[in-house]
Amino acid sequence: MKREDVLMEALPYIQKFYGKTIVIKLGGHAMVDQSILETVIRDAVLLRYVGMKVVLVHGGGPEITAKMQAMGKEPKFVGGLRITDPETLEIAQMVLVGKINDGIVSLIANCGTRAVGISGNDGNLLIARKMDPQRVQVGEVMQEVDLGQVGEIEEVDPEVLHCLLAQNYIPVVAPIAIDRQGMSLNINADTAAAEIAIALSAFKLVNLTDVDGVMDADRTMVYHRLALTEAEAMIGAGVIAGGMIPKLEGCMKAVRNGVASAHVVNGNREHNLLLELFTDQGVGTMLTL
Amino acid sequence: MKREDVLMEALPYIQKFYGKTIVIKLGGHAMVDQSILETVIRDAVLLRYVGMKVVLVHGGGPEITAKMQAMGKEPKFVGGLRITDPETLEIAQMVLVGKINDGIVSLIANCGTRAVGISGNDGNLLIARKMDPQRVQVGEVMQEVDLGQVGEIEEVDPEVLHCLLAQNYIPVVAPIAIDRQGMSLNINADTAAAEIAIALSAFKLVNLTDVDGVMDADRTMVYHRLALTEAEAMIGAGVIAGGMIPKLEGCMKAVRNGVASAHVVNGNREHNLLLELFTDQGVGTMLTL
Amino acid sequence: MKREDVLMEALPYIQKFYGKTIVIKLGGHAMVDQSILETVIRDAVLLRYVGMKVVLVHGGGPEITAKMQAMGKEPKFVGGLRITDPETLEIAQMVLVGKINDGIVSLIANCGTRAVGISGNDGNLLIARKMDPQRVQVGEVMQEVDLGQVGEIEEVDPEVLHCLLAQNYIPVVAPIAIDRQGMSLNINADTAAAEIAIALSAFKLVNLTDVDGVMDADRTMVYHRLALTEAEAMIGAGVIAGGMIPKLEGCMKAVRNGVASAHVVNGNREHNLLLELFTDQGVGTMLTL
Amino acid sequence: MKREDVLMEALPYIQKFYGKTIVIKLGGHAMVDQSILETVIRDAVLLRYVGMKVVLVHGGGPEITAKMQAMGKEPKFVGGLRITDPETLEIAQMVLVGKINDGIVSLIANCGTRAVGISGNDGNLLIARKMDPQRVQVGEVMQEVDLGQVGEIEEVDPEVLHCLLAQNYIPVVAPIAIDRQGMSLNINADTAAAEIAIALSAFKLVNLTDVDGVMDADRTMVYHRLALTEAEAMIGAGVIAGGMIPKLEGCMKAVRNGVASAHVVNGNREHNLLLELFTDQGVGTMLTL
Amino acid sequence: MKREDVLMEALPYIQKFYGKTIVIKLGGHAMVDQSILETVIRDAVLLRYVGMKVVLVHGGGPEITAKMQAMGKEPKFVGGLRITDPETLEIAQMVLVGKINDGIVSLIANCGTRAVGISGNDGNLLIARKMDPQRVQVGEVMQEVDLGQVGEIEEVDPEVLHCLLAQNYIPVVAPIAIDRQGMSLNINADTAAAEIAIALSAFKLVNLTDVDGVMDADRTMVYHRLALTEAEAMIGAGVIAGGMIPKLEGCMKAVRNGVASAHVVNGNREHNLLLELFTDQGVGTMLTL
Amino acid sequence: MKREDVLMEALPYIQKFYGKTIVIKLGGHAMVDQSILETVIRDAVLLRYVGMKVVLVHGGGPEITAKMQAMGKEPKFVGGLRITDPETLEIAQMVLVGKINDGIVSLIANCGTRAVGISGNDGNLLIARKMDPQRVQVGEVMQEVDLGQVGEIEEVDPEVLHCLLAQNYIPVVAPIAIDRQGMSLNINADTAAAEIAIALSAFKLVNLTDVDGVMDADRTMVYHRLALTEAEAMIGAGVIAGGMIPKLEGCMKAVRNGVASAHVVNGNREHNLLLELFTDQGVGTMLTL
Repeated sequence: MKREDVLMEALPYIQKFYGKTIVIKLGGHAMVDQSILETVIRDAVLLRYVGMKVVLVHGGGPEITAKMQAMGKEPKFVGGLRITDPETLEIAQMVLVGKINDGIVSLIANCGTRAVGISGNDGNLLIARKMDPQRVQVGEVMQEVDLGQVGEIEEVDPEVLHCLLAQNYIPVVAPIAIDRQGMSLNINADTAAAEIAIALSAFKLVNLTDVDGVMDADRTMVYHRLALTEAEAMIGAGVIAGGMIPKLEGCMKAVRNGVASAHVVNGNREHNLLLELFTDQGVGTMLTL
Repeated sequence: MKREDVLMEALPYIQKFYGKTIVIKLGGHAMVDQSILETVIRDAVLLRYVGMKVVLVHGGGPEITAKMQAMGKEPKFVGGLRITDPETLEIAQMVLVGKINDGIVSLIANCGTRAVGISGNDGNLLIARKMDPQRVQVGEVMQEVDLGQVGEIEEVDPEVLHCLLAQNYIPVVAPIAIDRQGMSLNINADTAAAEIAIALSAFKLVNLTDVDGVMDADRTMVYHRLALTEAEAMIGAGVIAGGMIPKLEGCMKAVRNGVASAHVVNGNREHNLLLELFTDQGVGTMLTL
Repeated sequence: MKREDVLMEALPYIQKFYGKTIVIKLGGHAMVDQSILETVIRDAVLLRYVGMKVVLVHGGGPEITAKMQAMGKEPKFVGGLRITDPETLEIAQMVLVGKINDGIVSLIANCGTRAVGISGNDGNLLIARKMDPQRVQVGEVMQEVDLGQVGEIEEVDPEVLHCLLAQNYIPVVAPIAIDRQGMSLNINADTAAAEIAIALSAFKLVNLTDVDGVMDADRTMVYHRLALTEAEAMIGAGVIAGGMIPKLEGCMKAVRNGVASAHVVNGNREHNLLLELFTDQGVGTMLTL
Repeated sequence: MKREDVLMEALPYIQKFYGKTIVIKLGGHAMVDQSILETVIRDAVLLRYVGMKVVLVHGGGPEITAKMQAMGKEPKFVGGLRITDPETLEIAQMVLVGKINDGIVSLIANCGTRAVGISGNDGNLLIARKMDPQRVQVGEVMQEVDLGQVGEIEEVDPEVLHCLLAQNYIPVVAPIAIDRQGMSLNINADTAAAEIAIALSAFKLVNLTDVDGVMDADRTMVYHRLALTEAEAMIGAGVIAGGMIPKLEGCMKAVRNGVASAHVVNGNREHNLLLELFTDQGVGTMLTL
Repeated sequence: MKREDVLMEALPYIQKFYGKTIVIKLGGHAMVDQSILETVIRDAVLLRYVGMKVVLVHGGGPEITAKMQAMGKEPKFVGGLRITDPETLEIAQMVLVGKINDGIVSLIANCGTRAVGISGNDGNLLIARKMDPQRVQVGEVMQEVDLGQVGEIEEVDPEVLHCLLAQNYIPVVAPIAIDRQGMSLNINADTAAAEIAIALSAFKLVNLTDVDGVMDADRTMVYHRLALTEAEAMIGAGVIAGGMIPKLEGCMKAVRNGVASAHVVNGNREHNLLLELFTDQGVGTMLTL
Repeated sequence: MKREDVLMEALPYIQKFYGKTIVIKLGGHAMVDQSILETVIRDAVLLRYVGMKVVLVHGGGPEITAKMQAMGKEPKFVGGLRITDPETLEIAQMVLVGKINDGIVSLIANCGTRAVGISGNDGNLLIARKMDPQRVQVGEVMQEVDLGQVGEIEEVDPEVLHCLLAQNYIPVVAPIAIDRQGMSLNINADTAAAEIAIALSAFKLVNLTDVDGVMDADRTMVYHRLALTEAEAMIGAGVIAGGMIPKLEGCMKAVRNGVASAHVVNGNREHNLLLELFTDQGVGTMLTL
């Protein structure tokens, strides 16, 4: 492929995306492998260079678990779901906000761009309520389990993001929300990213994860383009299953609510973010209406 | 005192302070006693109600020490100064940013106002460099001690604060800075508040602490008004001494650099913040040029 | 009552009223006792200090009568109503615009604030038409009486007030209107104040008068809070009667047409204006929807 | 003269004057003959129609005298100068502000344009100080005479005029000023017009009076164009003398202080204002640097 | 007629037209007689002086024919209509855009005002499609004739005109359009002027031509004012006929689509443009709704 | 080369050039070969897509000569220089403005972007004066030759370009200027492009021509980067000679006068414009200070 052809292909996308908002969920190995994180951050900064408004949302499960163990606090799981007691929440908040979030902000600063790290209680960005007890299978029986300080998002007030984006900062959001009594709650980062994308009327939501995208049943081929109805049909038919379903759900909700496209992209391969956005075929799965 | 007289006295101050910036350093018992913190926050929110632009800067030494001990990490001191090794810094950052800062943001949200918590590496607010080794007396001898990840501020970029204040958020700043290589450093909160006040051309800097203000040698009387030259003379003459000197130094630097007045006020007495600002005599010490 | 409690009570009102428009009708003794007028003016200027947009409307009946007598022109009354022949109107206009209005402007200038005195024909502020003959009882019989150059307001063009308020002037309005042929007409100042408050979508209308507010039948207690429907019921039941009815009518019309609250306050007691606005209970009667 | 030639001659002036400020002093018969006043007002309104910012300043000597006599107050003169005792000032103020000024505002309203009448104490427009005693010849001897409440202008704050002009009102100014203690003073209207023109950086000052302009010694010819130095020389040589000197003095001061041209025009001849402005030769005297 | 009367008559029109848009079609002798063209241009520049936004649209038939002949290319006509083959279009475009248009721009520059010459393909101002074959009488028989590169306007994008007018340029438009494939087409200048006037929501369309306006059947009297319905009736009744019909059609379409008035004026008489606009009676025919 | 590497290399340039002005001189084969012209136009449109403000300047010598011959007018040359008599200028103007310029505008319209074609007399863009007679060698002798209607640029008024660029049009400029008497003059297109770049404080001037850039003496290697002083030295040393000197002179003048870089690029190779701008090494010669 000749340089000029790459450019001819990319420039119209660059034009199209100029000034548009993109919400990127950082997950997978990027959260445990510093060199992958750095590459992803560098790509995200390049997106800002060519005029996109970039918002990063990160998770941090593995590091929370590690820190809890270091502090002699054993993580509790019931039926595979983590129970977040107040002490766990305090550790989660310290790790997410005081360590991971600040670390990403520093990496962006090192690329010569300015970021501001916030969590969902800053500017009342994410208002949540405590999640209802969940029915899960524990051993042989179904059981209602109270997950503790875990929230589901009720309302998003994106003004703080608009304010930071208008000043050319990259906002970096930790998945903590606040309830109407001012209590913090842990929330799912995929969901947070999708809700933020909707509230911002973002142009794109990109979920950087560990798989190459939505694949066919044999896992030999990535579907590069999926319409919402196709995705729904494939879930119904069981073609899409397992861990991909929760990832896709955020994307589907975003697309249903005005986000022009949502992407599932393997963040572990270098520069996949750029290739997904600036080439005709892309590398992951792009979901549209 | 009749209500109308209080109003007649207060209204001209309210007019005078409208739209002005006030930087408030939260310290002393407010950092360990939740009910005092709540009262102070409520007063600060009232200041915003009458049109002031409020910036809060907090410390957090006692809670860091407590958390370190809880995590089995023994705080190290040499000649009375804390040594901040990387592990200590990580804990400090998690406590300051992930716990205290977020807690203050939640309290403000509970008062019906919106805050955004940041640290000095957000938006490159506070650029610092590692502090040179300090000469301290260790036992009988003077010794050069490397304090570790402790910084002194070289540059303040207040744009993120302007951006948040313009949108009517109360910024809450944790005393962490970033060096030019993107490494985090712990910094002194009194100094951070003074430097921020200078960078914002603030109208007032208020240092809320545990003492009633600058007192005479017998500690019977508070000096309610001090000119900069008087304060300098009193330090020279040894009238002001001990722990008050570092507190006053930030105030003096602020006043020398364009902040109209700097106050030392006992934050432990209810509503002292309001009385200092809206009465003719005040309750603490006001330092001016 | 402690100072801080007065402040804690007042500050939320000050916030709430910031930038809001208040129309104050000056009447009663303030129009004949210079020292009362001066106190009221000083309070009004304080309201502007804390960000309110203040418009003053004044009357002047007693002084017009005095000047007519000094000029050897006997005031004529039929059935208790003043007959305004052209000569009377000329005197009224000279007294209201050339003397009282200018005097209030000078008092405000002395408080360090700038005012601009206008009458209803400036900028076509108040367009009126000659009032229809009124049926009044003269001796034993009812009779139709032509009141002469007296108008009722048909239209208010508040642009000149917006223009002056935007430049931080206090507009002072004399109760003269202009008809569509460019002829001046005398108008009732209470009505003028109410119509101006409506046209400005004012937040408050305050009628400063000689009584403490709406009182119960025994005149022992002031109703501090009245809903519009309550006031209507009390007038229907005859609890409110006499001279209070015309005062209340302007207030009721204002509240019906978008003015958030209308107050009847005794202007003769010092600082009642401040106490009515900045305390929870107030001192006069506040009428709301 | 053909219509098209008049237009060809006038259009470039209309372009040149667009958006420019013109201060017009109304004097002479216009102040006593209503039909002349109406014609002048109509011309002034036409100037606003073609984009000029028009400010009117009026006098009112004859009417004050008439009203004083009607009120049984004998005007006092010493050596030809009027003595303004407090009672005289009150009458003057009532006549100027409450009668003449309001009358002009009504006439302008009748032409379909909006005016706002003010005096020099509105918005602190004209700050004056009491005039020093004047030496005048009384009978055979020179005598120092205190003229009473008569002021000379110390400072002009044109903001209220800018504010009204920006909203397309025609400001109409009565010759009353305020001293620094808030006391009203009578002032000379010619001087007031000149000072206002200077403070507004007006493009033109037009003094409408009863004579055709500056004439030669034989009074047979009007000088249509005069340079400032020529006027000074003619005064020095005694060619210009008598009542024209005080008229010219205001014009000369205006031209010395940035007003591009000052005109003396006979306001008694119909439409002289238009002919002076929109024809090459003009009809009165135009003074320039 | 006295100068002041001409002014009194003209000034209200000048006011009324200030800031309004006028589209002037230059035709008739002005396109062949340089001195007439210069007079018309000077009048048009005067219109801009008094605040109108002037757009000029020109034709150029005679000069195209002349240039074709000079280049040895014989103009072809069928049934009186010119056939525009590609070579003819190229010559027409060169003459209209490269000669006549540039010449008008230079004349305006000589009057001290700035113009920008464009054609309908600049900024996609005039989008046209190739005209359908026309039925014309050729000798004895009716015949369908393909006129070649001749267009009829489908869409007007006036943004380039707004942009130039906002910067005080006089746009000069050559009657060339572009089709949706980017091919140039010749168009009728009368139609172009009318469509541009509609797209600009112009206040006036003036068609400068060789006749005095719409005349009665005897050609003794010009109808100075015509309502649209009258014009329609007169065409229906055959009173208006011949070459005037196509001229009127553009005017009628303009008036039907929001242009306040459309004028047919003899451009050969000096300053007719000014007399038509600034006198009560006018000189040509003014068509209104 | 991998796609992602091309993107990583290009994106920082795209960022750097965003909002910057680039003046492109179209010359060489692009002026005679329609397919080359189309490719170049498409690249220029892509530059606008990624946020650059593009101005095109074109020449047209060969086509003028061709058209003259077609019109039976023999081009005259003295000592290799074209003599532009009035008839030649008329033809040149018709070809440049009425044919080439309009053609480029149409091509840009076909790419979905809007252009506006102007020449130097539009908006007084290029003010020139007739060039002094030049000394040229004619046969054996040097001779002063009057080149006729040929101008050299004295002043550039870029306002019309700013106005069009602000509205996102691509201005296309024909090399015609106007002298202070309103007469058109032919000018050199390379010079026009350089002067326009200077007047616009352009970021880049690109001269698209038929050679690959500045080459070494053997013509085997292109100098991709040249400092101004190097270029001057190479001209002094005779390394650069012949037709490249006049091309370089415009570039050098531009760089001396604030244009950040000037490029000589072979426009005949596809997409060289993109490769020169968006790759590290470039393909032609970039001249900087």
